[in-house]
Amino acid sequence: LYPSLRGYIDAVFCAPELETLAECDVVFFATPNGTAMLLAEQLLARGVKVIDLSADFRLQNVQDWEHWYGMTHTCPDLIREAVYGLPEVNRDAIKNARLLACPGCYPTAVQLGFLPLIENGLADIQHLIADVKSGVSGAGRKAELATLMSETGESFKAYAVSGHRHLPEIAQGLSLVAGKSVGLTFVPHLTPMIRGIHATLYAQSEASLNELQALYEQRYQNEAFVDVLPQNSHPDTRNVRGSNNCQISLHQPQGGKTIVVLSVIDNLVKGAAGQAVQNMNLMFGLQEELGLKIVALYP
Amino acid sequence: LYPSLRGYIDAVFCAPELETLAECDVVFFATPNGTAMLLAEQLLARGVKVIDLSADFRLQNVQDWEHWYGMTHTCPDLIREAVYGLPEVNRDAIKNARLLACPGCYPTAVQLGFLPLIENGLADIQHLIADVKSGVSGAGRKAELATLMSETGESFKAYAVSGHRHLPEIAQGLSLVAGKSVGLTFVPHLTPMIRGIHATLYAQSEASLNELQALYEQRYQNEAFVDVLPQNSHPDTRNVRGSNNCQISLHQPQGGKTIVVLSVIDNLVKGAAGQAVQNMNLMFGLQEELGLKIVALYP
Amino acid sequence: LYPSLRGYIDAVFCAPELETLAECDVVFFATPNGTAMLLAEQLLARGVKVIDLSADFRLQNVQDWEHWYGMTHTCPDLIREAVYGLPEVNRDAIKNARLLACPGCYPTAVQLGFLPLIENGLADIQHLIADVKSGVSGAGRKAELATLMSETGESFKAYAVSGHRHLPEIAQGLSLVAGKSVGLTFVPHLTPMIRGIHATLYAQSEASLNELQALYEQRYQNEAFVDVLPQNSHPDTRNVRGSNNCQISLHQPQGGKTIVVLSVIDNLVKGAAGQAVQNMNLMFGLQEELGLKIVALYP
Amino acid sequence: LYPSLRGYIDAVFCAPELETLAECDVVFFATPNGTAMLLAEQLLARGVKVIDLSADFRLQNVQDWEHWYGMTHTCPDLIREAVYGLPEVNRDAIKNARLLACPGCYPTAVQLGFLPLIENGLADIQHLIADVKSGVSGAGRKAELATLMSETGESFKAYAVSGHRHLPEIAQGLSLVAGKSVGLTFVPHLTPMIRGIHATLYAQSEASLNELQALYEQRYQNEAFVDVLPQNSHPDTRNVRGSNNCQISLHQPQGGKTIVVLSVIDNLVKGAAGQAVQNMNLMFGLQEELGLKIVALYP
Repeated sequence: LYPSLRGYIDAVFCAPELETLAECDVVFFATPNGTAMLLAEQLLARGVKVIDLSADFRLQNVQDWEHWYGMTHTCPDLIREAVYGLPEVNRDAIKNARLLACPGCYPTAVQLGFLPLIENGLADIQHLIADVKSGVSGAGRKAELATLMSETGESFKAYAVSGHRHLPEIAQGLSLVAGKSVGLTFVPHLTPMIRGIHATLYAQSEASLNELQALYEQRYQNEAFVDVLPQNSHPDTRNVRGSNNCQISLHQPQGGKTIVVLSVIDNLVKGAAGQAVQNMNLMFGLQEELGLKIVALYP
Repeated sequence: LYPSLRGYIDAVFCAPELETLAECDVVFFATPNGTAMLLAEQLLARGVKVIDLSADFRLQNVQDWEHWYGMTHTCPDLIREAVYGLPEVNRDAIKNARLLACPGCYPTAVQLGFLPLIENGLADIQHLIADVKSGVSGAGRKAELATLMSETGESFKAYAVSGHRHLPEIAQGLSLVAGKSVGLTFVPHLTPMIRGIHATLYAQSEASLNELQALYEQRYQNEAFVDVLPQNSHPDTRNVRGSNNCQISLHQPQGGKTIVVLSVIDNLVKGAAGQAVQNMNLMFGLQEELGLKIVALYP
Repeated sequence: LYPSLRGYIDAVFCAPELETLAECDVVFFATPNGTAMLLAEQLLARGVKVIDLSADFRLQNVQDWEHWYGMTHTCPDLIREAVYGLPEVNRDAIKNARLLACPGCYPTAVQLGFLPLIENGLADIQHLIADVKSGVSGAGRKAELATLMSETGESFKAYAVSGHRHLPEIAQGLSLVAGKSVGLTFVPHLTPMIRGIHATLYAQSEASLNELQALYEQRYQNEAFVDVLPQNSHPDTRNVRGSNNCQISLHQPQGGKTIVVLSVIDNLVKGAAGQAVQNMNLMFGLQEELGLKIVALYP
Repeated sequence: LYPSLRGYIDAVFCAPELETLAECDVVFFATPNGTAMLLAEQLLARGVKVIDLSADFRLQNVQDWEHWYGMTHTCPDLIREAVYGLPEVNRDAIKNARLLACPGCYPTAVQLGFLPLIENGLADIQHLIADVKSGVSGAGRKAELATLMSETGESFKAYAVSGHRHLPEIAQGLSLVAGKSVGLTFVPHLTPMIRGIHATLYAQSEASLNELQALYEQRYQNEAFVDVLPQNSHPDTRNVRGSNNCQISLHQPQGGKTIVVLSVIDNLVKGAAGQAVQNMNLMFGLQEELGLKIVALYP
């Protein structure tokens, strides 16, 4: 199935049965939504830690979850225990988590870009805009017309403008930080490439660009995977392709009150598998960067 | 040079000398900025109409032009005479124009998307945001590192966030319509495809989506090249690839006050050569759609 | 379904029932293999001409067809009547056809490239090689993992090297021209683009390049859709993107006995819909180029 | 210059002066052709080993080199000493080399694919065909019209069919192995992706596929970077993207005498920088795989 792994790995697929899984230290769920919640309780009861890359435990409000995901949650009690796995926000809680909900790809890029502004009360949180562009691998490996190369190549479009499942997740994260509910317009787009997310974020702020640049650099100076670029930078998504990094840059066009934050990640790494490993490292007391100091493939 | 034209055209290139050009009814300048202004005056004096696809006559304010384009304008007096060639706004003036300034690609997509909102005073014009994505052909056919396939393929980036030459052009157009100066944040991006512009526009408005949908449909109902899609639509840039069309759709996420307008064109057609022909048709009393009823190449 | 056609066409889809179809002058089948054969007989009996873009009537040998397409043919008697729709070979027969089998995309590019060599007995027909590269739209608009952008973008591969359905079709066509069975190695490849086929053909020949160049130019001089390029040319597939043209060039590396023919088409036009219309024009006594003098979209 | 390396490397560029370079153990030349030959002699005299990724020392015949590269060689005497750095052929010589000529990208893919056939006298060496497809990064990072995304995206073409600089290099390598001059037709193509080479090789052989499969597996069983796939495989270039691997598969269409070998590499790794490091490891007595056990980025 993965011919690129020939010679590196000789693991074989096996059926995901409880008894087999129960022998593991940790189980990663990279499964369709609604799958992890069926097994999580039993695994936790057997002492197995659970890292869920799907959306089952991302939203604290069950009604919201059921509304956006269109199914009944089978273990709502576990939601309260689940820790949202954005290490740059929740590192301590992650270290003690048994059940971890990995953030979605869009939410990772958007939250990392907005965080310092909102933590410091420097933005009008009622008028946040996130215009975000994703490569097509964000849709997963499913046989669908919409993600055929003939449909997505050489074309660009927005989708789900009236409401995307990642909207409540981002709003929840930012509201927790702000201490009150934020007003967010989130517009996702599909761009004709495989990997990468580019978030272009707009906020109204009274702060100067120099202040904000200093603030962002300070906020992330000890973060291994978040890199604030010098002023006047424009990160390409390829800067982080294949790596667990997020690159961020700040702009204040025409010296006005609209701050523009650019935030890029690889949706399959910092936006998915890489962040899951980062969380595992924290949960097991390992060095946070273990296995993740991978340089982007460039070009 | 253009092997796709073998068998269709047997025209040959010739040196662009005044005497030769003076025999034409109209001269199109698809030249680097600063070229058309050197010949325009003489051609007009010889009774030749001039259609400039470069930026030489787009900005009414000479100081602005010289600031953004970094050179001295050689015929500032002609600027006043030049007509800005956006037929959906200036049709009557275009019909009588001798010297026509074709709009840039970004300005075409952005202005068509914002126009009905602003003409009707339905948006907070101090907080307009245009997040726009362009295919790489927008940079022209120049040998440059930045637009190599190895540099732009499989990657996405913003550029010129602190200020792009199309910003004053868009602001000029919208301000004329609004009757006062608008506040616009314009962020251009490069997307890994050849043709196409996708503008995602944000405005604060008290109007309802239904009102706005009706307004847009009415505003453009007699326009041959602007198509307002039904509610809940998301235009792909490929819908207009190779055609002179602009497709527009409207959204009001979560029923809030932020209106999202999606506007797509082919930057090489409605954003350049197609619009130039549309203007020529108007200037010479021809049918406006002549030579332009081309269906997009899809997929 | 085709947003690019908004404003151009107001036709609606209807169920393909016999009574409805029987009122037409001609029915095009752009259907999965095995569909046209179910309706063709009845339509012909009602006086309707049939143009099949699928493979149902391409192979004269029923056993071969059933072997390669894995089903039983429901009207083998009609196969003998069907005319193979390559106008450059079968123009007269096409004019009188009631039932027309449109060639596949690979077979069109390969046969047009080899024809003059083989018609004139100038190649060793036991050792022909066709190394052919196709854009992903050749696979049709089906929801399949293999043609997702994440699977086919930024990658190149051969497929079906041990045997592809177009092999017997090409061999049949070339053998008919040669007057005896040819030996052909055909290797198809998938290239990361949407439209276009590039055939690189290898044949052993005693003829000189100048002779062959003259021969090819003469052979195709009256063909509206086949263009033999000057010596030392290398046709890009984009030269014919969106057009019904085939561009061909000839090379004789190092003056040796291996002739290399390059032949490009748009698989969706000359390789499918365009050629079907060309055939219709011939069948109904219309001008052959009607509706087909479309310039390629470049770039 | 390489924003992907921020945080990983703090090396700075410096002028390539002899005194500075002379303090190194080894100097890699990733320079335009004609550069390494100007400094190599002096560096060797100072005890510095030289690994040249350009073509200066690849061809043993100086006249050939001067013909294909269009300049006079400044140190023809060194050519004899230079070792051709294809470890799978020259491992022992490489271990003792002072001056190493790294193979070109096309020659690496083609030679590895043909080697076992030719070493064992199992092919008609007068009629070898190499139909090879490369991503655009093969052209290097130069500002040129021909490799702009608008020129190479969504299109496929052959180039240099009448003669490419890598032809004499491949022919030299295969002739050395065969013990006599080979007859090779080499056709390079440009495919619209960034990285990757796919060689489709054709040879006439009396051997059976099973024999050849066994032979290839045995020939490469101890090679860390050459992987012979099971029968009926078709390697994608993405299987090796970013890695130093070469994947090879064998086919014998219709059980005939034409053997088809598929060979893929990443032109920037096994076809350039990766192979250079592999050679350095051998020259310095290090473990051959050091720094090179990188898994491909997939997808």
